[in-house]
Amino acid sequence: MDQRGDQSIEKTVKSEMIYEGRILNLRVETVELPNQKYSKREIVDHSKAVALVVLDKEEIFLVRQYRKAIDDFILEIPAGLVESNEQPRETALREMQEEIGYGSNHLEYLFDAYSSPGFTNEKTSFFFTNDIYEGKKEGDDDEFLEIVKMPFERVIEMIDTGEITDSKTIMGVLYVKKMMDNGQI
Amino acid sequence: MDQRGDQSIEKTVKSEMIYEGRILNLRVETVELPNQKYSKREIVDHSKAVALVVLDKEEIFLVRQYRKAIDDFILEIPAGLVESNEQPRETALREMQEEIGYGSNHLEYLFDAYSSPGFTNEKTSFFFTNDIYEGKKEGDDDEFLEIVKMPFERVIEMIDTGEITDSKTIMGVLYVKKMMDNGQI
Repeated sequence: MDQRGDQSIEKTVKSEMIYEGRILNLRVETVELPNQKYSKREIVDHSKAVALVVLDKEEIFLVRQYRKAIDDFILEIPAGLVESNEQPRETALREMQEEIGYGSNHLEYLFDAYSSPGFTNEKTSFFFTNDIYEGKKEGDDDEFLEIVKMPFERVIEMIDTGEITDSKTIMGVLYVKKMMDNGQI
Repeated sequence: MDQRGDQSIEKTVKSEMIYEGRILNLRVETVELPNQKYSKREIVDHSKAVALVVLDKEEIFLVRQYRKAIDDFILEIPAGLVESNEQPRETALREMQEEIGYGSNHLEYLFDAYSSPGFTNEKTSFFFTNDIYEGKKEGDDDEFLEIVKMPFERVIEMIDTGEITDSKTIMGVLYVKKMMDNGQI
């Protein structure tokens, strides 16, 4: 909690759990605003997540899959939800193996980001690796995805053209581009 | 819809509306997977949003506010939800006025991004402006935020240090940095 004091905090006066599910819960909180008025906050409690920028020399690994929430196929960097018994780094290594069939000798932590703090606490930890080795691909039974490997510079262009529309992919790719431009990779 | 054909699409066999709210709805869909097994998808239908990178010479405008979903204060670029009668560009201009008290003579559209397509269709349209004029600040009654103006280069550092953790802020700022590096600004 921030040290700025209580004056701008929204105090919860009532909390109603609407739904408890597999990857998320929904609750509606009645809060008291700093002006003593009341408002409702619709909040999605979501599992923590990881996302990975994986480079093989000049190429990046993406996965293309159908996402029911947007009723369309979308290109994303490898990602997944942190299981209850895992640390984010373990999740990252597991998802690399499951989604693209590679292991990493050195996985660099980049940063954490809240997906959309106006309504959800979903937080994604970002990792980077360009030190990889081929393993055996053992996908999750319920995941149907296509691995797409392409030049890193092409993905940057695809943000400009609107072909890449996934936030974690845009963040991960632009951050790694910054590292490259700074000579950190 | 993508042209790749039906073979990887998840067909909805049952859809249950759990909650219909102010900024979001929650529905749970039972889907048939490509392997003929069934699974549940927890889906948050969310209002469209906008986010803006607003520069005043070398400085960027951020807003600092309490977000109930993460129970903390967070620094963000100006943003807001698209009302039913609005185009994203109108929302962007309205939010600029409401949140930081500025108008813009030229607002450049950057890109659209899905916040977290694994569970929500929330999509944010990003805009940029460095052509601004001071207006009268007329904030939303229910918003309590502090305007924070700081050197653009400082925000980049704050992504590295973990002081900036909001996805739309990271995306907007890194994208505009790329434009600067390419001489587009």
